[in-house]
Amino acid sequence: MVEDQDTICALATPNGVGAIGIIRLSGKDSWEVVSKIFSKQLKEQASHTVHFGTISDKEGKAIDEVLVTLFKKGKSFTGEESAEISCHGSLFIQQKIITTLTEAGCRLAHPGEYTQRAFLNGRMDLSQAEAVADLIASESRSAHNVALKQLRGGFSSELKEVREKLINFASLIELELDFAEEDVEFADRTELKKMVSEVLVYIRRLAQSFELGNAIKNGVPVAIVGAPNTGKSTLLNQLLGDDRAIVSNIEGTTRDVIEETLNIDGILFRLIDTAGIREDAKDIEAMGIERSRAKIEQATIVLCLADVAKQNSVAEGKKWVNELSNTHPEKKIVLLVNKIDIGKNGEANATHISAKTGEGIAELKQELVALIRGDFDPSNETIVSNSRHHEALVHTAEMLQKAEQGLNTGVTADFVAMDIRQAMFHLGGITGDISTDDLLGNIFSKFCIGK
Amino acid sequence: MVEDQDTICALATPNGVGAIGIIRLSGKDSWEVVSKIFSKQLKEQASHTVHFGTISDKEGKAIDEVLVTLFKKGKSFTGEESAEISCHGSLFIQQKIITTLTEAGCRLAHPGEYTQRAFLNGRMDLSQAEAVADLIASESRSAHNVALKQLRGGFSSELKEVREKLINFASLIELELDFAEEDVEFADRTELKKMVSEVLVYIRRLAQSFELGNAIKNGVPVAIVGAPNTGKSTLLNQLLGDDRAIVSNIEGTTRDVIEETLNIDGILFRLIDTAGIREDAKDIEAMGIERSRAKIEQATIVLCLADVAKQNSVAEGKKWVNELSNTHPEKKIVLLVNKIDIGKNGEANATHISAKTGEGIAELKQELVALIRGDFDPSNETIVSNSRHHEALVHTAEMLQKAEQGLNTGVTADFVAMDIRQAMFHLGGITGDISTDDLLGNIFSKFCIGK
Repeated sequence: MVEDQDTICALATPNGVGAIGIIRLSGKDSWEVVSKIFSKQLKEQASHTVHFGTISDKEGKAIDEVLVTLFKKGKSFTGEESAEISCHGSLFIQQKIITTLTEAGCRLAHPGEYTQRAFLNGRMDLSQAEAVADLIASESRSAHNVALKQLRGGFSSELKEVREKLINFASLIELELDFAEEDVEFADRTELKKMVSEVLVYIRRLAQSFELGNAIKNGVPVAIVGAPNTGKSTLLNQLLGDDRAIVSNIEGTTRDVIEETLNIDGILFRLIDTAGIREDAKDIEAMGIERSRAKIEQATIVLCLADVAKQNSVAEGKKWVNELSNTHPEKKIVLLVNKIDIGKNGEANATHISAKTGEGIAELKQELVALIRGDFDPSNETIVSNSRHHEALVHTAEMLQKAEQGLNTGVTADFVAMDIRQAMFHLGGITGDISTDDLLGNIFSKFCIGK
Repeated sequence: MVEDQDTICALATPNGVGAIGIIRLSGKDSWEVVSKIFSKQLKEQASHTVHFGTISDKEGKAIDEVLVTLFKKGKSFTGEESAEISCHGSLFIQQKIITTLTEAGCRLAHPGEYTQRAFLNGRMDLSQAEAVADLIASESRSAHNVALKQLRGGFSSELKEVREKLINFASLIELELDFAEEDVEFADRTELKKMVSEVLVYIRRLAQSFELGNAIKNGVPVAIVGAPNTGKSTLLNQLLGDDRAIVSNIEGTTRDVIEETLNIDGILFRLIDTAGIREDAKDIEAMGIERSRAKIEQATIVLCLADVAKQNSVAEGKKWVNELSNTHPEKKIVLLVNKIDIGKNGEANATHISAKTGEGIAELKQELVALIRGDFDPSNETIVSNSRHHEALVHTAEMLQKAEQGLNTGVTADFVAMDIRQAMFHLGGITGDISTDDLLGNIFSKFCIGK
């Protein structure tokens, strides 16, 4: 890792016009650079203090009256000497101050460079740094909670604990290796097996939580399908609680694919309305007006709507659900029996609703959440939402499984030790205890500038 | 004036996603309200200090790790106890913190309420408060300079000086009134006349500067007109320095009205390209494809393009300029003789250019600036850019003129005194020394929320 000594600056607030704009500096000359263009000397000031004054351009012409906040080295977000300039939120002023700062001796920051510096200076580990970007992008309570827990180091400290167990394990095994010629078993194999097995269970559960974590982070695509006039648009409106889609009794009304988001219990569902399915559709192929099929392909949850008041509709719906379950076993398929305000149907493997009156809709919403949440409890349990972490966890689990098998089949300690070291390598990549420059560049380039 | 004691909060940074968002509080309970939801007690802290900690919702669940900046009463923008919360710039977090703050005992701020409080608490006068909004909206160097000078009190202190002169004048005149029955003239009439006349010259010049001030604030609409193929699009491109409009030699190429801004010496010119004028256009009526005419109506400057290489083009152009000058005497009309790379023409009342080679374009740009700037020097002189101020200045001048006439025709002192008092009333309205609640409500409601 190379420590970059440049002093950097960037606009940290959203690009636009507002009451206040913040320009952030970080690097060893931050205070000095600001002092050059500010009406007050900052050198002798304390950390975490705020100073009112005027910023002027290189001709000495006033640009704005601002507040400058100072952070001493070791006490800032990046760990470096930092300053924040709080100016009036005009595009002209923000741009002019940034230009003047660069003329005074700092350069524009790259995307994510502040957080990257925070990581390089040991202010946070890699998974915490990644959580900063997730936190800023979070649109729902769940996404926010997952990112915040990660930022606050909850995930990191759990991983640290696991890592310590593995280090402990490895040291026992490797001690044995040192005395290999003497054919001694220092470590209690039963204990070792138990330890690996416990860690493996934990890592697997973390890896599995990614399905939920990914859904929380990116939203859950839900396709609503069904024969014409089974009430797809009415259902959509009922779920959304407004009149987004045009509803009528004329078959094939829904001409355009409409996508809306629905927030249930802090999880974002992206509802996909599909073009009507032709009356004569008898099998899954015939359902497929092309865009409808494309939407099913994209969906995580497919709601198959049947009309209880129409002959054969429920039977047909059941057939579709079965076919879809065969062709798309990874998807969650729900048979929705609609129009229970008109008639009833005893079908057990179905959710019964009236899109018109709203009966059963609250239960449907809870079912949608349960389908995604499974037995995970995102408010108390660590949920992995980052695909890089997921991949690392899967690799860790593979190596642990290999070690477990090795212990069971009685392979020599050196093989087991190698597997455990590999597992620790993958696990360490999550927090950045083991990382490469390529990896870092890749992670931080996805940040916005100013972060 | 009613002092509002509510503690208020609002997002102060632009609405959107960024690295940092700032939520601002003002009012007597600001520190207490933040303390309720923050991980640290703020009561005993010093003004202008920054504190790191966690904001939690009413269930005690962490929302974000933030920096809280404190401002004591009398030392803040509004003059009230204030706090700023610097959080991660996610929409979810910003919204959640604002909701939590309102639950903890403050209310959402109205648009402009912070600046209104700053005014009511005597932190700035009315013209300075108005400058805050202008400063935030400023898009060019000139607009920024005018607003900043006004914010920093340059305009106010000039007005104060004038007002003191008038108060002095009024007191002399009114002293005379007290002894009216004794028929004594305390004040030297010649001196009084000189004083009123000087103030009147100054106020008139300020009022006149509004034409420039308004142009600086809102940009200067410039219409480019001329017969087809005289080079209108080429001129536009030459001025803008890019390929915004499609240029070809086919007559009538410019189908759509294009509007572009051009920043010359810190003044924004809004260039309006017009649809081509038919070849047979002989007079100003025939020039008028409807939208071209509409653009001329909107324009402050009209550039009439003639082609030196085409027979009669310059003569026709001259005729148009004359007609436009008669029908629109308030507009600034320029005859532009184009294509001097092909031929020359001795026409004196014209600007000679080659839109193709760029010859004469720099001079044209300077001419545009000079047309707007007149004999005003915005970098050293106070320029009025606010229509409310302009109106007040016009009324002030009217009253001063009346007083001047009164002095000249020898009316009694009480009439002169009344005129002077009226003049002072109008002048005082600019800085808010004299103001009504209606006026205040009207001014501050135009601000953005958070300011």
